Amino acid sequence: MNKKAIILFSGGLDSTTCLAMAKAHGYACYAMSFAYGQKHEVEIERAKKIAVDYGVMEHRIFILPLGEIGGSSLTDKKINVKDYQEQTSIPDTYVPARNTIFLSFALAWAEVMGARDIFIGVNHVDYSGYPDCRPDYFQAFEKVAKLATKAGVEQDQHFTIHTPLIQMNKAEIIREGLRLGVDYGQTLSCYRADHQGRACGKCDSCIFRKKGFADAGVEDPTRYF
Amino acid sequence: MNKKAIILFSGGLDSTTCLAMAKAHGYACYAMSFAYGQKHEVEIERAKKIAVDYGVMEHRIFILPLGEIGGSSLTDKKINVKDYQEQTSIPDTYVPARNTIFLSFALAWAEVMGARDIFIGVNHVDYSGYPDCRPDYFQAFEKVAKLATKAGVEQDQHFTIHTPLIQMNKAEIIREGLRLGVDYGQTLSCYRADHQGRACGKCDSCIFRKKGFADAGVEDPTRYF
Repeated sequence: MNKKAIILFSGGLDSTTCLAMAKAHGYACYAMSFAYGQKHEVEIERAKKIAVDYGVMEHRIFILPLGEIGGSSLTDKKINVKDYQEQTSIPDTYVPARNTIFLSFALAWAEVMGARDIFIGVNHVDYSGYPDCRPDYFQAFEKVAKLATKAGVEQDQHFTIHTPLIQMNKAEIIREGLRLGVDYGQTLSCYRADHQGRACGKCDSCIFRKKGFADAGVEDPTRYF
Repeated sequence: MNKKAIILFSGGLDSTTCLAMAKAHGYACYAMSFAYGQKHEVEIERAKKIAVDYGVMEHRIFILPLGEIGGSSLTDKKINVKDYQEQTSIPDTYVPARNTIFLSFALAWAEVMGARDIFIGVNHVDYSGYPDCRPDYFQAFEKVAKLATKAGVEQDQHFTIHTPLIQMNKAEIIREGLRLGVDYGQTLSCYRADHQGRACGKCDSCIFRKKGFADAGVEDPTRYF
């Protein structure tokens, strides 16, 4: 039987590539998505479809009340998602503690169903400067996972947070995904996607994605509104 | 203005004492409770009342889907909560990753509203052997909090996880609480509490609590069914 892995899965370009890579490595993949109050919740519809296409063992969608906490333009109605602009500080699309919350839920599910491998499709190069996307953060979380769990403490097992994209830029991610047969026309990355799942082409996420296709010399299959 | 603190608050003996201690230390207290699918969700009604009595700045109740993950007798309908029995391994009341999930949400709220102090009423002595109640776990989580957040990385701020009860036994906690005026008749610790908030007197949590009152030489104000 294949080793089980949990894939944090938004239906975007990065997490879909990450799912394809985990599958190519022979893992039995369990996808996990979150309706966390994101304005672009339409991404979950894409995630559902892609998860089926990839024949994941199970796809779970959890509802989390991050919208009640706010503090990010992605979840807070009082803050608009802006067009991309170059900046040196962490942008307001940063969602406080989001990856820590997502990884904590992944850890809970992993422990219960016997997975010891968790994949998250963050990348360190073409990212928006989010603190919880850097290698030292994931190392620290692995230590927490070991100390927090019955599996870690009583059975001396280790949870590995896999970040296969972390050192890749967007063009490299796209080339690797295409090599593995990813249909990027199905994926949705936009922070301001409309009800039909079309992208704005102007937010941070759209700009990084667009540039990735251009740098990879590949036609951009994204539907823009 | 007083320094803000978030108090993870279940309405039980430990977290109520923890709230009283944080208040006595002069913090402006923000209480945070979770409806996480626990069978004894009636504890939240007690938490609401106590939070009002203590005049907290705000009391937030978040709904979390831990019942969908299961794996614990506290959240899983297929596993009954047992009577107390002495044991050397971690009991089935352990909820996978619960404190990591709770602390992650506390971290999110703390970052958004400008608190850098989080209180959690765990104790190391009369506890049930849960891994996520030990000092090294909290140290590891503080490191994650620092690396995960904009406040930690961009502003070099530190989040402190306060565990004032961690080295105390139940009798010591009760004596400290009584000194601070805690009305333990209002608190609810039972894992099998009924709709009226009465305790079973036989689960792990009831037995530790009962013994605490006996060891402290104090009348047990708990209502049992």
